[in-house]
Amino acid sequence: MLKNKMTELLKIENPIIQAPMAGGITTSKLVAEVSNAGGLGMIGAGYMTPTQMQEQIKEIKQLTSKPFGVNLFVPNKFAYTENEIHSANELLQPIRNQLHINEENNLNIPTCDQVIETFNEQIKVVIDEKVPVCSFTFGIPSESVMVDLKQNNIFVMGTAATVEEAFIIEKSGMDMVVVQGSEAGGHRGNFISPSQDSLIGLMSLIPQVVDHVSIPVIAAGGIMDGRGLMASLCLGAMGVQMGTAFLTCIESGAHQIYKEAIMHAKEDQIVLTRAFSGKYARGIKNKFIEEMEKHEDLLPEFPVQNALTQPIRKASSSKQNPDYLSLWSGQSPRLAKNQSVKMLFKTILTEAKNINKKI
Amino acid sequence: MLKNKMTELLKIENPIIQAPMAGGITTSKLVAEVSNAGGLGMIGAGYMTPTQMQEQIKEIKQLTSKPFGVNLFVPNKFAYTENEIHSANELLQPIRNQLHINEENNLNIPTCDQVIETFNEQIKVVIDEKVPVCSFTFGIPSESVMVDLKQNNIFVMGTAATVEEAFIIEKSGMDMVVVQGSEAGGHRGNFISPSQDSLIGLMSLIPQVVDHVSIPVIAAGGIMDGRGLMASLCLGAMGVQMGTAFLTCIESGAHQIYKEAIMHAKEDQIVLTRAFSGKYARGIKNKFIEEMEKHEDLLPEFPVQNALTQPIRKASSSKQNPDYLSLWSGQSPRLAKNQSVKMLFKTILTEAKNINKKI
Repeated sequence: MLKNKMTELLKIENPIIQAPMAGGITTSKLVAEVSNAGGLGMIGAGYMTPTQMQEQIKEIKQLTSKPFGVNLFVPNKFAYTENEIHSANELLQPIRNQLHINEENNLNIPTCDQVIETFNEQIKVVIDEKVPVCSFTFGIPSESVMVDLKQNNIFVMGTAATVEEAFIIEKSGMDMVVVQGSEAGGHRGNFISPSQDSLIGLMSLIPQVVDHVSIPVIAAGGIMDGRGLMASLCLGAMGVQMGTAFLTCIESGAHQIYKEAIMHAKEDQIVLTRAFSGKYARGIKNKFIEEMEKHEDLLPEFPVQNALTQPIRKASSSKQNPDYLSLWSGQSPRLAKNQSVKMLFKTILTEAKNINKKI
Repeated sequence: MLKNKMTELLKIENPIIQAPMAGGITTSKLVAEVSNAGGLGMIGAGYMTPTQMQEQIKEIKQLTSKPFGVNLFVPNKFAYTENEIHSANELLQPIRNQLHINEENNLNIPTCDQVIETFNEQIKVVIDEKVPVCSFTFGIPSESVMVDLKQNNIFVMGTAATVEEAFIIEKSGMDMVVVQGSEAGGHRGNFISPSQDSLIGLMSLIPQVVDHVSIPVIAAGGIMDGRGLMASLCLGAMGVQMGTAFLTCIESGAHQIYKEAIMHAKEDQIVLTRAFSGKYARGIKNKFIEEMEKHEDLLPEFPVQNALTQPIRKASSSKQNPDYLSLWSGQSPRLAKNQSVKMLFKTILTEAKNINKKI
């Protein structure tokens, strides 16, 4: 019932991808357990150094013989003024003081060239390690990168928030497209349409994309169980990518206070903010988001603001304080459970079967 | 396959409700055709006088013997300052001049008492005419109204945008709840949670509501075809309420330029605005929305701003000019077709059957 072109292309059993959440969530254990359960485990490597990436890939290969993937952030040009940094620092300094952070730690802002260099090295690791699947967020890599990946038989996926973006991803030669509904937690993946106008719910996004592209479409955003999987298939998707549902799993590397925050959140407490990174992302409203709310427009863009807030998030985490952490979550926190990956898969597949019988 | 508790309770054949779009869209022909096709036709009576309502109800009874319904806006207290009216008028005057509107037409602002009086008369019509179904938007009517409706065996439905709102609707004694996803066109139905935080996509909203209430849940927002119907059922809804899909139907009373605008729109051109009525609503971005964008926070609340813009919308319509019309639409305009209600039902039911076989 759940076998289709997507499972065939990815050589997996079940049409379920574990979303490549960046920032230490996708432990080797999480990725391998997902792949071992017949899904596709993914490393959220956006913020990783090439060395960290390579080490984790080697580790995962010890834990599973099944396909898995890596997700990378496509570098985009960025710029900032001293003025922007100054006013952001002015807003952040009281929080840094409160958390006893030394100012010198705050200035680790990368240059565009550094970001591009890291990305190219990350691509080299993907190729060297023959990672079966590579997905991208925030755009489409250069033609030469695409050619390199294809020549090395790496399966390539893109992330789209609108029909036009999905169409461009298909045209770039990618093998599959993940469509990110407005329900999705974490960073918005839009790269052409502006963030605020590309918040399309999956009920609308999936069928409209499916009607306009011929590569398989994977649905992402708010999907937590067999109901979401079956609904996505009805709408024309070939599979789902689930983030929050895996984030609260036992094997995920998310901090326990982060998991707890999701499991206690309500759907209308999950908001969009660019306060943490300079790019819009969806997460649980906390003290940091509230304090920054009125100043969002003044903050520098990604990844500059991300670099400026990094020590704050780190200190908040080590102090077990959720107030200044980025608590990314999709819009279905009430469905989150702290369970094993194996149990999550078992429940999803049972639910899917029951729905199939009932409907 | 599509028969369930919802169709049984409403005494209809197919779990499809035509959304009660206000403002002349729900002609008697549209409502009756939907009911005759086995769905539930609904009069969008929010802006109607009791007399207009009664006339239309009588007309519909001539056209169908099947159940149909009426939707009313629950009155909410509102207030405004002369200052607000003044600054709104300052923004609107250039547009009025351009459309050759006389200023004296603009000042038809109702009082709270008038709104409540109209509502009570509307309720009386519903009871006098024994309308089978009455649904509400913008809240819950008083206990005495609820008792009156129940004593007269009128089936009562509420509109919710969050789990909490659905829960409160159930507690109030309503028989069914329509959950409005962020995809939905027209006015946001939230009445407790703030508008901006209650934009929950149906993929998230349906299962979370279904887990928290025991009355049947109807899904609304971006649903246009058999794919959306089947997806909603998978997520646990018992039926769907569709607006935009019926709005572009031949039988709908929407202006031809409005229908055309939807059929040419893309999903990322549909935005939220409070510029037309003072309450957030989703529609196609046009000149009016663009011009008001920066001043939205200054505008008076519903229904004050609605009264101030009414002559503008009317003039724009009679001049065949979509620039100053409220072009409400859900997030799936690419799926809209100009077809008969009968054909729309036929397509939905065929698609639903095919999906059922395939999945």
